[in-house]
Amino acid sequence: MPLTTRSPAAPLLADSVRPAEDGVHLLDRRVFPFEHRWVHARNLEQVACAIEQMVTQSSGPYFAALWGMVLAARDAAEHRPGEFSQRLSAAADRLIATRPTNDHQRLAVAWVLGEIDAARARGEDSPAELAAAALAGARAGDADYRDRSRAMGEAAAALLPDDGAVLTHCWGDLYLTETVAAAQRAGKQLRFFCTETRPYLQGARLTAETLAEMGVAATLVTDGMGAALFSQGEVDALVTASDRITLDGHVINKVGTLQLAVAAHAFGVPFHALCHGPDPAAATGADVPIEHRDGDEVLHTLGQRTASRRVRGHYPAFDVTPPRFVSTVVTDRGPFAPGELAAYAAQDRQEVV
Amino acid sequence: MPLTTRSPAAPLLADSVRPAEDGVHLLDRRVFPFEHRWVHARNLEQVACAIEQMVTQSSGPYFAALWGMVLAARDAAEHRPGEFSQRLSAAADRLIATRPTNDHQRLAVAWVLGEIDAARARGEDSPAELAAAALAGARAGDADYRDRSRAMGEAAAALLPDDGAVLTHCWGDLYLTETVAAAQRAGKQLRFFCTETRPYLQGARLTAETLAEMGVAATLVTDGMGAALFSQGEVDALVTASDRITLDGHVINKVGTLQLAVAAHAFGVPFHALCHGPDPAAATGADVPIEHRDGDEVLHTLGQRTASRRVRGHYPAFDVTPPRFVSTVVTDRGPFAPGELAAYAAQDRQEVV
Repeated sequence: MPLTTRSPAAPLLADSVRPAEDGVHLLDRRVFPFEHRWVHARNLEQVACAIEQMVTQSSGPYFAALWGMVLAARDAAEHRPGEFSQRLSAAADRLIATRPTNDHQRLAVAWVLGEIDAARARGEDSPAELAAAALAGARAGDADYRDRSRAMGEAAAALLPDDGAVLTHCWGDLYLTETVAAAQRAGKQLRFFCTETRPYLQGARLTAETLAEMGVAATLVTDGMGAALFSQGEVDALVTASDRITLDGHVINKVGTLQLAVAAHAFGVPFHALCHGPDPAAATGADVPIEHRDGDEVLHTLGQRTASRRVRGHYPAFDVTPPRFVSTVVTDRGPFAPGELAAYAAQDRQEVV
Repeated sequence: MPLTTRSPAAPLLADSVRPAEDGVHLLDRRVFPFEHRWVHARNLEQVACAIEQMVTQSSGPYFAALWGMVLAARDAAEHRPGEFSQRLSAAADRLIATRPTNDHQRLAVAWVLGEIDAARARGEDSPAELAAAALAGARAGDADYRDRSRAMGEAAAALLPDDGAVLTHCWGDLYLTETVAAAQRAGKQLRFFCTETRPYLQGARLTAETLAEMGVAATLVTDGMGAALFSQGEVDALVTASDRITLDGHVINKVGTLQLAVAAHAFGVPFHALCHGPDPAAATGADVPIEHRDGDEVLHTLGQRTASRRVRGHYPAFDVTPPRFVSTVVTDRGPFAPGELAAYAAQDRQEVV
């Protein structure tokens, strides 16, 4: 019996972290679309390592963390009852520490821990009851993320032309697929330019492929071509996902986003940044740590060396786009000007955190 | 006996088009630095094909065109004297047509044709005398290009800090090497960030390697990272070569330059564009045709496919940076504001064209 049910029509990457009785199966995004290889994580530690090793990224770590917590709860249920909380807390810390910039794991573990706390409050504190609560929390977190993505996608699609071209960077995961699906439901004819997004080529491998799966024309460009397209009037909107958006409207996303946002601004092309909502814990850009990955990754493409041994690489994995270069922050509660995100935060929260 | 003499201390790419008795030998920049493979062009047509096939680029086609014209003159000297001019004119047209955006070939053939005209004016019109004039023209064109690059490099180095970081894009050839050499003579301590410059990776393969050969610390970044570096204060100047600069200060260079120039401008980093001088035949950006190359090239890195067959590629090879994003145009007559290039054009020309 599958632990979740999803639409069979969805593109593969919209269902690429799959819980099962024997663990969690993660589609290896490092080799997609050339191979459809699945990594089988049997326990919490293997899930954490898969996140660290970039088997999955974007919203993948969120789903991986949900189901990783379920594995941790199952495991903890087989140990002494008094250790349950301590084991789950350690599991949460392990998952949150996997990637410093993306805060999805933090949200995911909160769903599971919150449901466990609620179970305890109801007097359900046997290991089996707590493990069941963890599963319920993961399911609720899964549904919440998909529901919020759908609402955000509807709002984003409404900002796009009925017939036009969108440039996107890196891989927007459900933010992207729900935006495209909403545009398709509205009968919009969109074409996409995708930056290849070096060094991992998420744009070439994940975004372009998924758009093609969805029947959308996808044209690949290098990471340096956005401004040339903007200056020639070939793009109607820049749309990217975000790893985090601060309360004052700074957009943290894959490195390269800032450069595109500045160029779009210079040539009058709107930049719509997608997120479920701003991070209530991040007041401004300086509050978000930027992950620096091994510079050696810049020196390779698909495993092949691109420069000689005399050369070093530098890889700040994310950049911070100031609000003056952002037209709209599109959330699950609709579009906001980047300077008005306090209005989002002030609304009565439906969130678990 | 070599046809030219050059410094043995120069980096390999500063001497990568070599005339010889048996034709022209061109270092294959498509496989450098992983292989030091030389393409042997025995006649004008083989030189033209090598330029078209990107065996050499940047200033390479200039030198290739000089020595290709010498081959054409040798060949013409073996035919009927009355056909010499017609054959040389056809050779010039063939070379000029190889690449539409870069105008180096036009300058090169003018050196050779000018020397032939001068010989005729002196009454030297035997095939042997005309072939000798072609060789003299090529030698003079070679020396002129190197002299002007050296003067321009001195002017560029004077704009750079005594100790600081420069970001460069693509490959600046002698413009870059002479700038670095001048900075080294002045005792300046420069570090370079090099964009990898997709799809051909000229930055990773040519620029970074050559800087390393010259003893300069070279750090590779992807084409999307420039703005992130500028915004963090990690770069003191953006310096690129140019394929052409118009009289009103538009800079035509490898695609990606515009995006970096806009980002540099947004974060207060000066952009110095290098050229011997503005193109007197190009009043403004609209006068310069932009070469679009096969989009399939964007779908590969070093011969390896980066996206599936479902995806198309798009490859405008150059972009046009408006003067408002350019701090300085550095020429062989010193630095100019982009709006003041008319002053360069008004000076008494030393040029052959």
